[in-house]
Amino acid sequence: MTGPGSAPDPARTAMLTALAASERVRGTTSPNPPVGCVVLDAAGDVAGTGATQPPGGPHAEVMALAAAGERARGGTAVVTLEPCTHTGRTPPCTSALLAAGVARVVHAVSDPNPKAAGGAEVLRAAGIQVESGLLGEQVARGPLRAWLHFARTGRPHVTWKYAASLDGRSAAADGSSKWISSATSRAEVHELRGRVDAIVAGTGTVLADDPQLTAREADGGPRPRQPLRVVVGDRPVPDGARVLDDSAATITLPGGDPVAVLDELARRGVVDVLLEGGPTLAGAFVAAERVDRVLAYLAPALLGSGPAALGDAGVASVSQAWWWDIEETTMSGPDVRVSAVPARR
Amino acid sequence: MTGPGSAPDPARTAMLTALAASERVRGTTSPNPPVGCVVLDAAGDVAGTGATQPPGGPHAEVMALAAAGERARGGTAVVTLEPCTHTGRTPPCTSALLAAGVARVVHAVSDPNPKAAGGAEVLRAAGIQVESGLLGEQVARGPLRAWLHFARTGRPHVTWKYAASLDGRSAAADGSSKWISSATSRAEVHELRGRVDAIVAGTGTVLADDPQLTAREADGGPRPRQPLRVVVGDRPVPDGARVLDDSAATITLPGGDPVAVLDELARRGVVDVLLEGGPTLAGAFVAAERVDRVLAYLAPALLGSGPAALGDAGVASVSQAWWWDIEETTMSGPDVRVSAVPARR
Ligand SMILES: NC(=O)c1ccc[n+]([C@@H]2O[C@H](COP(=O)([O-])OP(=O)(O)OC[C@H]3O[C@@H](n4cnc5c(N)ncnc54)[C@H](OP(=O)(O)O)[C@@H]3O)[C@@H](O)[C@H]2O)c1
Ligand SMILES: NC(=O)c1ccc[n+]([C@@H]2O[C@H](COP(=O)([O-])OP(=O)(O)OC[C@H]3O[C@@H](n4cnc5c(N)ncnc54)[C@H](OP(=O)(O)O)[C@@H]3O)[C@@H](O)[C@H]2O)c1
Repeated sequence: MTGPGSAPDPARTAMLTALAASERVRGTTSPNPPVGCVVLDAAGDVAGTGATQPPGGPHAEVMALAAAGERARGGTAVVTLEPCTHTGRTPPCTSALLAAGVARVVHAVSDPNPKAAGGAEVLRAAGIQVESGLLGEQVARGPLRAWLHFARTGRPHVTWKYAASLDGRSAAADGSSKWISSATSRAEVHELRGRVDAIVAGTGTVLADDPQLTAREADGGPRPRQPLRVVVGDRPVPDGARVLDDSAATITLPGGDPVAVLDELARRGVVDVLLEGGPTLAGAFVAAERVDRVLAYLAPALLGSGPAALGDAGVASVSQAWWWDIEETTMSGPDVRVSAVPARR
Repeated sequence: MTGPGSAPDPARTAMLTALAASERVRGTTSPNPPVGCVVLDAAGDVAGTGATQPPGGPHAEVMALAAAGERARGGTAVVTLEPCTHTGRTPPCTSALLAAGVARVVHAVSDPNPKAAGGAEVLRAAGIQVESGLLGEQVARGPLRAWLHFARTGRPHVTWKYAASLDGRSAAADGSSKWISSATSRAEVHELRGRVDAIVAGTGTVLADDPQLTAREADGGPRPRQPLRVVVGDRPVPDGARVLDDSAATITLPGGDPVAVLDELARRGVVDVLLEGGPTLAGAFVAAERVDRVLAYLAPALLGSGPAALGDAGVASVSQAWWWDIEETTMSGPDVRVSAVPARR
């Protein structure tokens, strides 16, 4: 917040722009991080903005420098992640920043990846002023969340999303569940599907509901990006199941051990996973400590009977409960939307 | 809100004080409304504050006028409820206001009770300036909520309070439920118990948990006011059950029809009821449309098995679900606290 009379800090404003730019490419960059960058000229005016392109394409810094052209000289690069020093499919971003002659680099989050890290040091050694941490938490909890988790643990980040009534039922006694959650919540979930790398569901859900598991617009049409569809379980998915249509790629994984499922997905470059259930598979993921975020859409309805949102998670007594920290509670139309992360013990 | 430079409205400030005064007597006045009153002198300064005394004692206006003495003359009475014209165990408040010579009366909520209403008219006919509606919604949803419901419907107001995990379980598979909800939430519930007229529970809960159903301080000691304890069901409550101890009055009501239970409680002057369950009785109250507010304490825990918070409520399909409007979602320590009222159809 800027108080009355104090001028807004141009780096902070630029970081908010970089954050928004990175949000827009979220889901298109895996296994690379979705990064945003703004280049300010020597006077502090915006000279160029960029975001990470799909794998093999230029990184955010290179895009923003290209947009800034000569105005980058003596200016500041404001970037959501520490610039990489790593030659992969593209040359290191530190080299591009040095070649462009920027005087200062401000990044939100340091790179935890040992292969790419050290960017700040390389830049400092070349006489560039480097600052880190600006809006760091906002970036780390926002667009870089899944990628940072992957970089630190080697495992895809899993969000278990579920919709239930206020009393925790995911369907009524007759199995009907259309629609417990509101149109607003359903649209939000489709938006989220469009930003993750993979949607995971169990064979139980696929056999019971025949879901398409695609990201759709409000009018039912497909979103531009479709995540990989992943069906977990031993029972075969019948030919003609909607999850096997040609609207997106689908893999089926037998066995069902959450750890093995995530290993296989990591091998395929999946960083961000949306686990959509059902209750049995979700219980197995919770019990294996492989849920990194719970996203609950609680509709303002009472049902009093019907299947529960979460199946067996290995808990016999309250002393064995899985505890979470509520990160945020917001309204999603008429529904209560709760986001939670594993409690620090 | 008062913007910079504008003077605060003395009537508004006084109404906030009156509201706080009425909150303090909530639970001590039934079947009378918990009312607060502030008398301002002719200069707009606070001359006296008062709140409704227990049944048979003076009403809020009389208390505030007594505190103000001669300073009431030419002043303003600011009161949360329209002054009554009704001679019950005490004389009408309109007479007291006229006798004290106030020039103006500002009330938040009009009296829906035909026997007592008409106060504004009586005062206006006597030449007093009367205004109504100031902070009306805040008062109607706050301290006067249960009483207004009772005045309009003839039925006690029922709050169904429950504690559950985020996935809707009120206990673990082994029946353990200590403690799903946090110390903060439990303290809040004891505070609430201390402000209602009656706590209602089913025989199932009494036989399973042997609860005391009293309002206690954090140290376990009793709060000054104890609500009536009401056990609903046909099975006898065993001698020695804690709900029969001498810390509060207890009645047992067989039959179990929620409508009949509330009729009996209304007959006993109960206006504000806290329904504490268990799931079977709560389901019966929901199905009978006799829950006026849901107050859910959702702990940030996942259990995946164990009894559900709400039992059969006559819902077979989503189309028959009971719908609510979320009034407020707040944090209670680490728990999510959701308050909901029946959806307007
Ligand atoms: N409200 C919501 O948010 C939501 C979301 C999704 C689904 N649902 C509902 O959930 C219902 C289906 O429930 P469900 O529990 O049968 O679905 P599920 O969790 O999708 O599927 C369960 C099946 O997955 C397989 N599986 C894979 N890995 C497993 C593991 N580690 N442990 C145990 N089983 C594993 C097993 O089948 P195999 O024998 O084939 O291995 C198991 O029977 C549907 O009615 C659907 O509507 C609700
Ligand atoms: N998490 C929470 O907030 C919370 C709160 C309270 C209780 N609980 C848990 O709930 C469990 C007890 O569950 P419960 O469902 O048995 O308890 P309950 O709802 O308190 O009692 C059910 C019994 O109440 C009687 N009853 C009265 N009116 C009824 C009606 N209209 N319809 C049906 N039955 C009526 C019946 O017994 P009769 O045969 O005697 O008539 C019935 O078996 C305990 O383990 C307790 O820990 C949890």
